[in-house]
Amino acid sequence: MRRLRLLTPGPVNLHPAALAALAQPQLHHRSPEAGELVRDLRDRIARLAGTAGEAVLLGGSGTAAMEAAVRALLPPGARVWVPVAGKFSERWCEIARAAELVPVCDAYDWGRAVLPEAVPAAPLDGVLLTHSETSTGVLQPLAELAARVRERHPEALVVADVVTSFALAPVRMDAWGLDAVVLGSQKGLMSPPGLAAVVLGPRGLERLRPAGYYLDLARELRAQRRRQTAFTPPINLIEAAAGVMAALESEGWEARFARVRRANERFYALGEASGLAPVPASGAERSPATAAFYLPEGAAYDEASQAFAARGWRVAGGQGPLKGRILRVSAMGYFEPGELERAWRDFAEVIAGLA
Amino acid sequence: MRRLRLLTPGPVNLHPAALAALAQPQLHHRSPEAGELVRDLRDRIARLAGTAGEAVLLGGSGTAAMEAAVRALLPPGARVWVPVAGKFSERWCEIARAAELVPVCDAYDWGRAVLPEAVPAAPLDGVLLTHSETSTGVLQPLAELAARVRERHPEALVVADVVTSFALAPVRMDAWGLDAVVLGSQKGLMSPPGLAAVVLGPRGLERLRPAGYYLDLARELRAQRRRQTAFTPPINLIEAAAGVMAALESEGWEARFARVRRANERFYALGEASGLAPVPASGAERSPATAAFYLPEGAAYDEASQAFAARGWRVAGGQGPLKGRILRVSAMGYFEPGELERAWRDFAEVIAGLA
Repeated sequence: MRRLRLLTPGPVNLHPAALAALAQPQLHHRSPEAGELVRDLRDRIARLAGTAGEAVLLGGSGTAAMEAAVRALLPPGARVWVPVAGKFSERWCEIARAAELVPVCDAYDWGRAVLPEAVPAAPLDGVLLTHSETSTGVLQPLAELAARVRERHPEALVVADVVTSFALAPVRMDAWGLDAVVLGSQKGLMSPPGLAAVVLGPRGLERLRPAGYYLDLARELRAQRRRQTAFTPPINLIEAAAGVMAALESEGWEARFARVRRANERFYALGEASGLAPVPASGAERSPATAAFYLPEGAAYDEASQAFAARGWRVAGGQGPLKGRILRVSAMGYFEPGELERAWRDFAEVIAGLA
Repeated sequence: MRRLRLLTPGPVNLHPAALAALAQPQLHHRSPEAGELVRDLRDRIARLAGTAGEAVLLGGSGTAAMEAAVRALLPPGARVWVPVAGKFSERWCEIARAAELVPVCDAYDWGRAVLPEAVPAAPLDGVLLTHSETSTGVLQPLAELAARVRERHPEALVVADVVTSFALAPVRMDAWGLDAVVLGSQKGLMSPPGLAAVVLGPRGLERLRPAGYYLDLARELRAQRRRQTAFTPPINLIEAAAGVMAALESEGWEARFARVRRANERFYALGEASGLAPVPASGAERSPATAAFYLPEGAAYDEASQAFAARGWRVAGGQGPLKGRILRVSAMGYFEPGELERAWRDFAEVIAGLA
């Protein structure tokens, strides 16, 4: 059976530059070529994240990078604020607890924007934010939240999950006052999953403390400054992601961001024209990484999913409290010429047949 | 420039089944096909490891699996014995310290076998052993060591690194009394680096405790029993490794082990015929994963390495106290028809020209 093409908000269809890298003979991670790839990808990531700081690559998923960032930047007992408005902000909360921090996890309705007014007045050592909340399709006002944190708690570290905003929307660490962000290979970088990164701003670099072993960012940073890695890295994925970033840079990031945003808005326009309600509440900014809709009353997600599969597409449902209630599609991956047009047409036809 | 072919003891030249898997369109890790791959690879690994227990897959390097096993099986304060006779047994010691165990790290000359008589009499909660010590080329007598531990310390958990013995030599967890072993994708499984596994024997499964977040084996085991993973897994590497295992199984594991052992012995025969002294001490069993030689007096590793590179091969040098003093080659990867014969010929010619 032909493999379904992905309309899921990660993983996504691979960029041809990623597939080309994966077809290469195995590279040894201690070779000069590998060292150059490590340097190249670290530089590209830090530049796109808008920081004078540095990226640290990790073998693992985005969650590995989230945990590494928390443990390396905040000691046990640290008081952190986590506004929870979806599955990934909830994960920050779980990781903070596992790392023995003292998180204040404020719950918001899923689909809502978290407003800067929500930043608590009580003393904080850090905040753990989510830029693009993939589970709801909301792009949280990260710049405004970070600015309010800096104002109220100048010493608190600002850490953000940009897993589904990086390479899809602007992320400006130094300008916005972000001390660390985390990302993964299988979203805007259109590569397979298994590679993640923590990008450290100048203050993040200063505050780094040794923590753990495999996920110890301080150890990795020392190695990566010498174009090495502390342990065997997923070098094939490093080559893939570096190749994709080089290809996207030659297109220009602003053009790429605009293209993905327009493609995603097209899904929203088609869905709303068919009477589907968007998951992001009115007033919440929509993430370019996914278009999320409530299913019509009485429509089952499994049936919708099967209708898409019959046309060759894999889509995503809801997570947590939204499980079974929503449908998510994404235009952030790679599409062959004409493929996205076919996706829009099939999307319109399938949702017209729902309920 | 053509990429060098690998004679290194990991990573290795990719098996065609791995390359075929990597050329596939991206699979979604929550699809039924992905669930079946997770089940298939877990089953194949547990079967080849010789246990009625279960494998847990992890996104990361072999070191990630080492740390996950230590934290999940041994609480802070646990007394563990670590016989250190190379870089990878040294790593067990470092991980045990990072996890706040109380390790007794007994140092042996690198290249020596650790004999069962060395098992200490003082009370122990666990032992951390290394089967194939890749840094020296010694295959430690794992079955005998484990038997002695079981005899002296019936309650102590026996954990072993089989990173460069798995799929290269017999590993019989239940028969030998191993409670957990760790392995990675980039050695005998001839796949890219980035996927690791901890295999738990029946007693390892019983003693599992929650630990950490991303590397929490208990959480992963619960998810993987449902054909899921707790976090986004390196599904492309899971497909690659499962494909390679299926191909090797159809050849038969005993035939594969014998073929790799013979190919490695051929390097030893050629090296010894040229007067090179093997790193494994006399009496120590040689690992099939690498042939390691002391360089002749006055011969520089960099020159040897460059001579191999000029012929299209990448070889490995020494680590730790053996850095600059030894040369390592490996026949554990994939070789095209005639390629291994060419490797032997080039090896003989290059070493004849040393010093």
